[in-house]
Amino acid sequence: MVNKLFEQDLQVINVGLSSFADSIQQAGAKSLQLDWRPPALGDKATGEHLAALVNQPDVEAANRIAFDRFMLAQPVLIGVASARDGVPDFGERTLLHAGPPIEWKRMCGPMQGAVIGAILFEGWAENQITARGLPASGGINFAPCHHFGAVGPMSGVISPSMPVWIVKNEDRGNLSFSNLNEGLGKVLRFGANDPSVLERLKWMAATLGPAMDAAVKVLGGIELRPIIAQALHMGDECHNRNAAASSLLFKKLTPALLKTDFPQGDIAKVLEFIAGNDHFFLNISMACCKSMLDAGHGVPHSTLVTAMARNGVDFGIRMSGAGDAWFTVPAPMVDGLFFPGYSQADAAPDLGDSAITETAGIGGFAMGAAPAIVQFVGGTPQDAIAYTREMLHITMGVHSGFTLPPLNFNGSPAGIDARKVVDTGIQPVINTGIAHKDAGVGQVGAGITRAPLECFTQAVNALAVSS
Amino acid sequence: MVNKLFEQDLQVINVGLSSFADSIQQAGAKSLQLDWRPPALGDKATGEHLAALVNQPDVEAANRIAFDRFMLAQPVLIGVASARDGVPDFGERTLLHAGPPIEWKRMCGPMQGAVIGAILFEGWAENQITARGLPASGGINFAPCHHFGAVGPMSGVISPSMPVWIVKNEDRGNLSFSNLNEGLGKVLRFGANDPSVLERLKWMAATLGPAMDAAVKVLGGIELRPIIAQALHMGDECHNRNAAASSLLFKKLTPALLKTDFPQGDIAKVLEFIAGNDHFFLNISMACCKSMLDAGHGVPHSTLVTAMARNGVDFGIRMSGAGDAWFTVPAPMVDGLFFPGYSQADAAPDLGDSAITETAGIGGFAMGAAPAIVQFVGGTPQDAIAYTREMLHITMGVHSGFTLPPLNFNGSPAGIDARKVVDTGIQPVINTGIAHKDAGVGQVGAGITRAPLECFTQAVNALAVSS
Repeated sequence: MVNKLFEQDLQVINVGLSSFADSIQQAGAKSLQLDWRPPALGDKATGEHLAALVNQPDVEAANRIAFDRFMLAQPVLIGVASARDGVPDFGERTLLHAGPPIEWKRMCGPMQGAVIGAILFEGWAENQITARGLPASGGINFAPCHHFGAVGPMSGVISPSMPVWIVKNEDRGNLSFSNLNEGLGKVLRFGANDPSVLERLKWMAATLGPAMDAAVKVLGGIELRPIIAQALHMGDECHNRNAAASSLLFKKLTPALLKTDFPQGDIAKVLEFIAGNDHFFLNISMACCKSMLDAGHGVPHSTLVTAMARNGVDFGIRMSGAGDAWFTVPAPMVDGLFFPGYSQADAAPDLGDSAITETAGIGGFAMGAAPAIVQFVGGTPQDAIAYTREMLHITMGVHSGFTLPPLNFNGSPAGIDARKVVDTGIQPVINTGIAHKDAGVGQVGAGITRAPLECFTQAVNALAVSS
Repeated sequence: MVNKLFEQDLQVINVGLSSFADSIQQAGAKSLQLDWRPPALGDKATGEHLAALVNQPDVEAANRIAFDRFMLAQPVLIGVASARDGVPDFGERTLLHAGPPIEWKRMCGPMQGAVIGAILFEGWAENQITARGLPASGGINFAPCHHFGAVGPMSGVISPSMPVWIVKNEDRGNLSFSNLNEGLGKVLRFGANDPSVLERLKWMAATLGPAMDAAVKVLGGIELRPIIAQALHMGDECHNRNAAASSLLFKKLTPALLKTDFPQGDIAKVLEFIAGNDHFFLNISMACCKSMLDAGHGVPHSTLVTAMARNGVDFGIRMSGAGDAWFTVPAPMVDGLFFPGYSQADAAPDLGDSAITETAGIGGFAMGAAPAIVQFVGGTPQDAIAYTREMLHITMGVHSGFTLPPLNFNGSPAGIDARKVVDTGIQPVINTGIAHKDAGVGQVGAGITRAPLECFTQAVNALAVSS
């Protein structure tokens, strides 16, 4: 037996530290590195907590309920209103922001810039200096968008007079919200707040929002899952690529808008604005995902992840069975392609509520259906498919409504199970825009990042301790 | 040596008749069938003609010229006019039709139905019976669309008063044309000719055509290659799937149309019509392909295929170096998916000028970029990619402007070389709608077909004899 072994070429499978395999390769033999990490990265306490949640009837039952509610959600865009009028309990002097809770002093540059812009837009201060004094003196109530059923890309700042999309889950009645997309260039969500930005926000509040509300009401609401489903067959993943979804929405809105009594000049300007913005659907996609995930939130014992969000300083997740808790760690930097003249040194850490799309099984999770996106976020079309396949290991199932043609029309991996993330060490993939770290510079690139594992171990530990 | 052979398992590669391999497999051994056919399918005369055209300096030089003109073409949509006003030398009492030349008596059901409809639309007869008498008595001049620089899907019938898209190749100045897409259901191109069809045609002539002309002129023309390039990144192949391209065109036309002085009611109706038709861009895609290919036509000695077209009875091709000649054989049936209630027995043979898209390197040749189309034409996304890769063997190159994300952004196989088709026996793939064989029933399915090899051997033989 031993003799026979030495007659053959060495066939080595290495588990664990890859440096053991290096010396074998240096000696001229082949070795295969097994892509495996011990559950909970070998942390004994977490491993025991994890074991206490696996194949437990109450957890399994809770997850079935949470996943079904998530999957049965029927988000319908029902209108547009000011946050003040549309979002329940939205107080005055309140500003919502992206990600988990954060106080003014700790906010990143783009978020502080957006806050200043929102204060000027609302007329709560007359200039940049007095505007900056307001939050510093405690004159603003800050809250995460997520605490109000809302989501906002990048800094995600929403003030009372800003128009918001209103999405209703027809299955369970929960409402969700997002602001309207401003386009690219100098925009509030990247912290720009000069007069051109405020002027656009005023036009959006006075004309775009009411026009959208009127068009949506002519249509009697717009079902959102079919638009996303169709866009996934047209090369979108509905996070960083919304070219198809924005076009499909435009085709629905246009004839409806022409049936309203808005002046033709306003209609022309509104439609030109939408036609010029391939990301117009992003905020609606996010509100749709929020709508589906909120339906699955709040089921005791469930390990369904219902939000992943970043404020540019912290990365946080929420889990169905963990109520209002956030599990946060410092936000990672994004590995990406930078626009000419910019580099990693210019970038803010990961920012925005838009990872709600990945949480719902689209965005980075559906990249396999959007090969053209790799020109924006880097990598190859094969990488994009590999990301989607990898995510199948950490989700509770696949999305019944969102099928991916390049994967033989299999459903998109959907419903992240915090246990599976901790067990496999596979971190949820997120594709994202990259903001400049300073206010108002704007987007400097796009790329791929991963949700930090530690958020999920926190969530698993918290649930295990409370169970 | 022989002893050693009998010690091993048999490893058989079979070339030629697959029945030899069958008996080996029946005996329990494995065999691999080589996918190979002798050049010109073993026909000696054609083989000699083919040899006379391969690596001949005049043919190679001619092909370089023809391919470059094809590739450098810059088709721009410049407007819409009636065929009478827009198409040079379009005579009265003239009807264009799809495919190679055909006389009234031999026309298939859908084409005869469309001819009757066009006669009624023009007011050349008062009812179906007198309309039918007109072509039978020689009262109509029939000509292929292709003889007038035009292309039309399915029956492709174009009459003097019908509006046509006008496309100009800015590189060489050649003009091409196509009619406007009527949508699905009861439509002239499938041979329907009842009052609802004629009513729509009248509205298209009176309102849709002039509105499109005005919008295109507001834009100063629309470059077409960028739209197709973008649509190929959005899951279209721009023959049977034009969902993205139609949306992109809609987004361009809408703001322009709102800048014209058309009444808002007309604009609303026009935009609703376009928004409701995912095939609206097809006819423009075809005119764009015709524009590119006509640029490469008429180069002596060139074996570039410049048209593949079907009239429902005959399938014909044209070749750059063969001038006005058509090389025709009976049109094949299409292997496809049939709509509920229909089968192959209901189908007309392959019909329409739309194979101009495959001739230019999109449509079936670009299916790898359009995985969702297999739900319409059958097969799997892997088949779609395989078709695209297979076509690389018979084209002169790849299209520099049309890249395919799932194939790592390689260009689409473009510029069919008639020699390569004959040499390899690989027939150009075409995906296509399937018309009912009777007039007016409409589309009954969609599927995949192949251009008959015999057209290409005819072309090669003709060129070899004349050289």
